[in-house]
Amino acid sequence: MYTLFLKEGSVEILTTQIQLARKGIASSEAIQVAKDEDFPLDKLLKLIASGRVVITRNVKRENVRPLGIGEGLRTKINANIGSSADFCDIDYELRKAKIAVEYGADTIMDLSTGGDIDAIRRKVIKNINVPLGTVPIYQAAIEAGKRKGAIVDMDEDDMFKAIEKHAEDGVDFMTVHVGVTKKTVDLLVKRKRIIPMVSRGGTFHAAWIIHNGQENPLYSNFDYLLELARKYDFTLSLGDGLRPGCIHDASDELQMQELLTISELVERAREGGVQVIVEGPGHIPIHQVGANVRIQKALCKGAPFYVLGPLVTDLAPGYDHITGAIGGAIAAMEGADFLCYVTPAEHLGLPNEDDVKLGVIASKIAAHAGDIAKLGEKASYRDDEMARARIAIDWEKQYELSLDPRRAQLYHERVKAKEPKSCTMCGQFCAMKIISEALNNPNIEKMKC
Amino acid sequence: MYTLFLKEGSVEILTTQIQLARKGIASSEAIQVAKDEDFPLDKLLKLIASGRVVITRNVKRENVRPLGIGEGLRTKINANIGSSADFCDIDYELRKAKIAVEYGADTIMDLSTGGDIDAIRRKVIKNINVPLGTVPIYQAAIEAGKRKGAIVDMDEDDMFKAIEKHAEDGVDFMTVHVGVTKKTVDLLVKRKRIIPMVSRGGTFHAAWIIHNGQENPLYSNFDYLLELARKYDFTLSLGDGLRPGCIHDASDELQMQELLTISELVERAREGGVQVIVEGPGHIPIHQVGANVRIQKALCKGAPFYVLGPLVTDLAPGYDHITGAIGGAIAAMEGADFLCYVTPAEHLGLPNEDDVKLGVIASKIAAHAGDIAKLGEKASYRDDEMARARIAIDWEKQYELSLDPRRAQLYHERVKAKEPKSCTMCGQFCAMKIISEALNNPNIEKMKC
Repeated sequence: MYTLFLKEGSVEILTTQIQLARKGIASSEAIQVAKDEDFPLDKLLKLIASGRVVITRNVKRENVRPLGIGEGLRTKINANIGSSADFCDIDYELRKAKIAVEYGADTIMDLSTGGDIDAIRRKVIKNINVPLGTVPIYQAAIEAGKRKGAIVDMDEDDMFKAIEKHAEDGVDFMTVHVGVTKKTVDLLVKRKRIIPMVSRGGTFHAAWIIHNGQENPLYSNFDYLLELARKYDFTLSLGDGLRPGCIHDASDELQMQELLTISELVERAREGGVQVIVEGPGHIPIHQVGANVRIQKALCKGAPFYVLGPLVTDLAPGYDHITGAIGGAIAAMEGADFLCYVTPAEHLGLPNEDDVKLGVIASKIAAHAGDIAKLGEKASYRDDEMARARIAIDWEKQYELSLDPRRAQLYHERVKAKEPKSCTMCGQFCAMKIISEALNNPNIEKMKC
Repeated sequence: MYTLFLKEGSVEILTTQIQLARKGIASSEAIQVAKDEDFPLDKLLKLIASGRVVITRNVKRENVRPLGIGEGLRTKINANIGSSADFCDIDYELRKAKIAVEYGADTIMDLSTGGDIDAIRRKVIKNINVPLGTVPIYQAAIEAGKRKGAIVDMDEDDMFKAIEKHAEDGVDFMTVHVGVTKKTVDLLVKRKRIIPMVSRGGTFHAAWIIHNGQENPLYSNFDYLLELARKYDFTLSLGDGLRPGCIHDASDELQMQELLTISELVERAREGGVQVIVEGPGHIPIHQVGANVRIQKALCKGAPFYVLGPLVTDLAPGYDHITGAIGGAIAAMEGADFLCYVTPAEHLGLPNEDDVKLGVIASKIAAHAGDIAKLGEKASYRDDEMARARIAIDWEKQYELSLDPRRAQLYHERVKAKEPKSCTMCGQFCAMKIISEALNNPNIEKMKC
């Protein structure tokens, strides 16, 4: 993984994809991504070099297919798994991760907060072949709380040790809430929001800042964070701890202040040869989704944008995979690169296996709908194949092309149609059959019904 | 229902809402709609007079709450029910209609094509209190087919008799495929599309035109159609028989040619004192949804736009309620007034009760997301209430505000959380709890975990 680069007599050690790309070196990962995306390698290297594309891969990680995220590439989707204090079963979490990958999740984030957090992460990382992300502050806070009595008693060392431990395990990208600073907490205290914060990691930091009266250590020691990220080439995912938690609070000064802080840190990460992506909202009214994407892209100079939803209404608990698919599709169309799925259990409880599947499929629909806009025929050729299977009334081919072939087949065969090759919606009055016959035979001899 | 208007010695009979509004007469229906929508009555009358708002109500219809559709009003949603040749159970169709209304459908369309079509329509109309729509050409074609041997053997009389029969039964709005003309059929024969047509009613007309070599009678005798519509004040819903049936065929010359024809007929309907709305696609890539709405609104001088979906990818059979919610939400945001739901069974078979429920809820999410953009606080105040219930961790209030209270409760109570008032996602690490405590007590004495 490490590459030595000789420069006028001195030796430079290059570990990160951005460092390699800047030297014009095509890593095996970059070559693989260019192939997978059917994308010109030279152009890809330029995008990686400029920070507009990242390849999420920890140098310690084994058994993973490198994944490119960013401008010009297919929109990726992430599925969260992870235990909680109320429900902790290591095999169940692994099963959820596997289901997510089966239905098309490009990455998995393990957000465990209950049980043996190390064991879950290590088991998942060993048994899936897609990039894994984590939020190390969860473990730092929870373990500090257990050891010292309260979350806010964790110290700087606890935070960085957790990050280093995850890096050693091969975690490919990590959320760090570096935008939650004294400045944003000061704004928070003014309380113009209905819901001050909804980010778990974000509140750990905010409570810590309020309690200790000190700056967020991940922010004040960002250079050390960069050093770790450079060593392992894990991608920094700059978390939006101040993301709005409801439609009312969307696109407010808190959110924008955090984004400004993040945009500065994006620049510092790039200067430091570290790969970085930016996380975004959250709860956003539909007419502000596009603006949010375009502002992030402008402020953060094209850094890959990883959005959580966005959810376009607060009224649909139990159906937030749909609410999130609406926001995610628009975000993808407008340039977001990476969608975090939302399951039907969002706001209500821990998702089960079925929720994970529904969340992934809703997110895939959103990503693909966006890709039709972003990538044109490179994405829509599959829709065209489906259209040809439909006019040919070729059911097997239709199942095969579906995001969920089993469900498509189940629905079609639920009630048997009398007419061969038809479906129970229209039976003999199938529009496609009638028009094909009419166009093929203007005398329409066969059109008896 | 009938109003006599005295004009310089002569007597005019006014039956339609548009005629009344033009005279500045506020019908009881208009007064009710203004109240329901919290909308100024004088402004509403102007919108009705100009054809930008319709009130779907047949003068023969009893037991129905008048419904306004169009500019400035809440986005409405329609749920289709109806038998097919393969599945016909009159009580089952009524149950589907009732479920749809329970979950928020503003109108029902009965698209029955199997069994006793008259009986189904009459039973549904008697037992629901929302406007009912139909597509009379289905019945005309099917019954002519049975009687005469082929669908294309129906004559002009069959078509108009079906319309009159539906009008007599009190049907509030009817789809008429008046844009399927010889001109469009000529274009169709060139076959640039992957799927020539997907509209059932549209193909009945197209096959009829090809077979008989004559113009669509509903088009050539549009004045007689207007006469019927005026007599009963049913709203004409100008069907898009040439709507694209896949992403590939979207926004093509066929679709635009039909829209041009429709735009002329909108003007004639308005001149004739008839209420009219326009149907739209269909399958549309996400980046063309907004353009489709804006072009319709411009060409048809603000006529209410009733979209079928739109579906933003063809790859998700079994999940087309989600695909349709994405397109529908964007369409609503851009100005569409009326969304036809899509169920998970779309493209696969006749929907069952559960599909109807899922379709309605997905469509409600889309409509409400669009309304937040279109109507601002008039729509989003409910989201704000939900946000307040969330930060108060008031679960009962959250259920109550949900589009599907039972499902929200079910999800939340599926696994019991140890921590009181928390959920199993975060348990004691609830972001909202932590930040509320931190902000309320900077010493954070209580933050022990």
